[in-house]
Amino acid sequence: MVKIYSVEDAKKTILKRIPPDEVKVTEGMLARIEATFGERIMPEEAVRRIIRDIRENGDAGLALWNQKLDGFPRGVSNKVPVEDIQRSLELIPHAEREALTVAAQRIRSFYQKQPTHSWVTNDLGGTLGQFIRPHHRVGVYVPGGTAALPSSVLMSAVPAQVAGVKEIVIVSPPVRASGQDAAESPIFPYLPKIILAACAVIGITEVYAIGGAQSIGALAFGTETIPPVDKIFGPGNLFVTLAKRQVFGMVGIDGLAGPTETMIIADGNAKPAWVAADMLAQAEHDVLASAILLTPSLDLAKQVQTELEKQAATLPRKEILDQSLANQSGIVITENLEEAININNQYAPEHLCLAVDDPWSLSDKVKNAGGIFIGEQSFEMLGDYIAGPSHVMPTGGSARFASPVNVWDFVHIISLIALDKKTTQEISPLAARIARAEGLEAHARSADFRINEG
Amino acid sequence: MVKIYSVEDAKKTILKRIPPDEVKVTEGMLARIEATFGERIMPEEAVRRIIRDIRENGDAGLALWNQKLDGFPRGVSNKVPVEDIQRSLELIPHAEREALTVAAQRIRSFYQKQPTHSWVTNDLGGTLGQFIRPHHRVGVYVPGGTAALPSSVLMSAVPAQVAGVKEIVIVSPPVRASGQDAAESPIFPYLPKIILAACAVIGITEVYAIGGAQSIGALAFGTETIPPVDKIFGPGNLFVTLAKRQVFGMVGIDGLAGPTETMIIADGNAKPAWVAADMLAQAEHDVLASAILLTPSLDLAKQVQTELEKQAATLPRKEILDQSLANQSGIVITENLEEAININNQYAPEHLCLAVDDPWSLSDKVKNAGGIFIGEQSFEMLGDYIAGPSHVMPTGGSARFASPVNVWDFVHIISLIALDKKTTQEISPLAARIARAEGLEAHARSADFRINEG
Repeated sequence: MVKIYSVEDAKKTILKRIPPDEVKVTEGMLARIEATFGERIMPEEAVRRIIRDIRENGDAGLALWNQKLDGFPRGVSNKVPVEDIQRSLELIPHAEREALTVAAQRIRSFYQKQPTHSWVTNDLGGTLGQFIRPHHRVGVYVPGGTAALPSSVLMSAVPAQVAGVKEIVIVSPPVRASGQDAAESPIFPYLPKIILAACAVIGITEVYAIGGAQSIGALAFGTETIPPVDKIFGPGNLFVTLAKRQVFGMVGIDGLAGPTETMIIADGNAKPAWVAADMLAQAEHDVLASAILLTPSLDLAKQVQTELEKQAATLPRKEILDQSLANQSGIVITENLEEAININNQYAPEHLCLAVDDPWSLSDKVKNAGGIFIGEQSFEMLGDYIAGPSHVMPTGGSARFASPVNVWDFVHIISLIALDKKTTQEISPLAARIARAEGLEAHARSADFRINEG
Repeated sequence: MVKIYSVEDAKKTILKRIPPDEVKVTEGMLARIEATFGERIMPEEAVRRIIRDIRENGDAGLALWNQKLDGFPRGVSNKVPVEDIQRSLELIPHAEREALTVAAQRIRSFYQKQPTHSWVTNDLGGTLGQFIRPHHRVGVYVPGGTAALPSSVLMSAVPAQVAGVKEIVIVSPPVRASGQDAAESPIFPYLPKIILAACAVIGITEVYAIGGAQSIGALAFGTETIPPVDKIFGPGNLFVTLAKRQVFGMVGIDGLAGPTETMIIADGNAKPAWVAADMLAQAEHDVLASAILLTPSLDLAKQVQTELEKQAATLPRKEILDQSLANQSGIVITENLEEAININNQYAPEHLCLAVDDPWSLSDKVKNAGGIFIGEQSFEMLGDYIAGPSHVMPTGGSARFASPVNVWDFVHIISLIALDKKTTQEISPLAARIARAEGLEAHARSADFRINEG
């Protein structure tokens, strides 16, 4: 089921990057849009209408779309009661609670070490520097869909807490609860308990059961009950991504997420079963996920191919695996490890795993990747949950210019300019000269005042 | 000409933030679009068509729009010959060359002090950390229009050089040169010499006379002769800003720039003539620029008002000043300095100038601003040219979540995960537990392999 490619063939297929706006809109999606809007419009236009409705009608618009698109009952508050967040902890197995707690601790410990302090210098006359200030209020989108993702709560919200963000809001699409289930649930029944538990573990108290473009509109522009945020984080489906692009600039946006992807570079000594297991972990995310192995060893390639077949047969998400492995995944035979690294640097994957004898020397040559996993003990799945660094990493080749979620994403810099009088006297005439070369006389005169009256 | 407002009135007028996408499209702009496209389409659609043309037709599309919109002659290369960049230095006054050199040195010295190093920790079992890598290739847009802005070259390109970016490309809209001027010019006649000189001072060798949405399309997607970049920087007009939003995600985008703005907080001891001069320097940029004074002193307010009138009368860009001062600028009487700071934090201006007795204690309370100018010796115009920190700062209230251009904008983080075996054994069962709670069995099994065979 997983093919073995030459580099040349792979570059025309699984290694080819398609710009996010050239991704084809499926017939199924257009049909769903038509069912909702009564018209066959493009997703971008659908998103525009939803956001406009939230901006114009606030909570009423939000309630409408939350019902229409996600089946959330009208007349029920989409805000999770604070006490239910806390109570969720008692409703999940102790072992899960413990695992989430340790994961949160490790993520916190990691980001507490990231240097993001204010600094000043006195070497340029007076005091110049950068004040670092946390954003005041941020929103984190936690995707719904085929898996409930408590890890997504931890991986974005903990770095925000380390940064000192005062208000952290979680939004996540409501799950459908039948009338009876809802009536019998001891707590808010429209979000998975494990997601609420992740919020409780790190002390998050503001959670809304809203998703899709409507939640992005609400976070960006606010409603009567949800104050707007300064920046929006977290991956989502196509509607969420299009909505984030449309509000970019009005609020901060972490980046636009595409399907998740792993590149593994392995030599002949890697364990085929482990490599295959790591590829399958990647491929099970969704049908668009991609797992690509680069290796100079045809022997390893064949063994991994066999292992993939064998292991996949016993896994529950087989239908997803079949599609993601057949379409965007594969094994590429490279000339040597050097060529594999060059391919990696062009492709700029979200995850890069180095299952080779000397991963450290190879890691020095890596220019683009969201995260590097060194050796087979540091396998990718640990990064998804518990290693420490955020699992929210740049996808789709954006690792060329973007970073994993980190403390810098939650703070802003204020440049500090406090020149002393001597320096002002020295540099003002030079500044005035450039200003006059630019034709900006009022600029020059503001300098003249200091020169003449200083 | 400049009004004095109460806080209440100011919040309804000059302090009111209008979301960038609600800014009205003027009749003049629609008429210009109609003249070019033969149809009355919105600027967003015009930009979409231009970018599509560049993507589909590369250099030919670029040449077409460069001619149509900016009058650049067909059949002439838009790339500035490298030797002409160097020769431009001999064609500007020595004093300007010296000023640009000192400015570049100060900017470089400032950013060389910014901490952006890779780091690792061994406290979490094995080695975790962040590798910092420079982006490979970035584009800087230098606006044209009413002023030639060599300072914009320095303020974006020098931090890029400090970051270690290998390829830095400058684009700037061509100026119209008559046939005779062009023939007689000793060097490339379609860009101001002072802009080329700024490139020469810092060793930039790749410069194109292209502007508008067409230049953003070329940078984002590349043409036969211009390789695509990883990230695009620099402010521009509405077309440039719309183009940047449309390519956001395909490439990195520094942010969306709006009109420039200064907020000055002054007490009764500030010098009225200096405050007025600083406001005029801000207001002369363009008709949409804004200069707002917040002061508890009605006495100062009135003196500044008089000074503004007096000084403006003698300035060359009087028509621009009249509009920017009357429409988006003003003086606001606050209860006290505390209230002024609160207003500042809500408004989140690009520049904040503190012309007060104790600026340092006030600066501690500043949460949002692109840059803080401490005291009347550190006036805003020095920040535009020579103080050190970049003059490219967040506008339109985006200082709530965005930073001035700095070295971090030109590097990306790669998370490093190199756990030791003992730690892997400890945390793998916890990770498997979360994975199973999320319903991701293949994730859990990749951990099982390490637990069982580790």
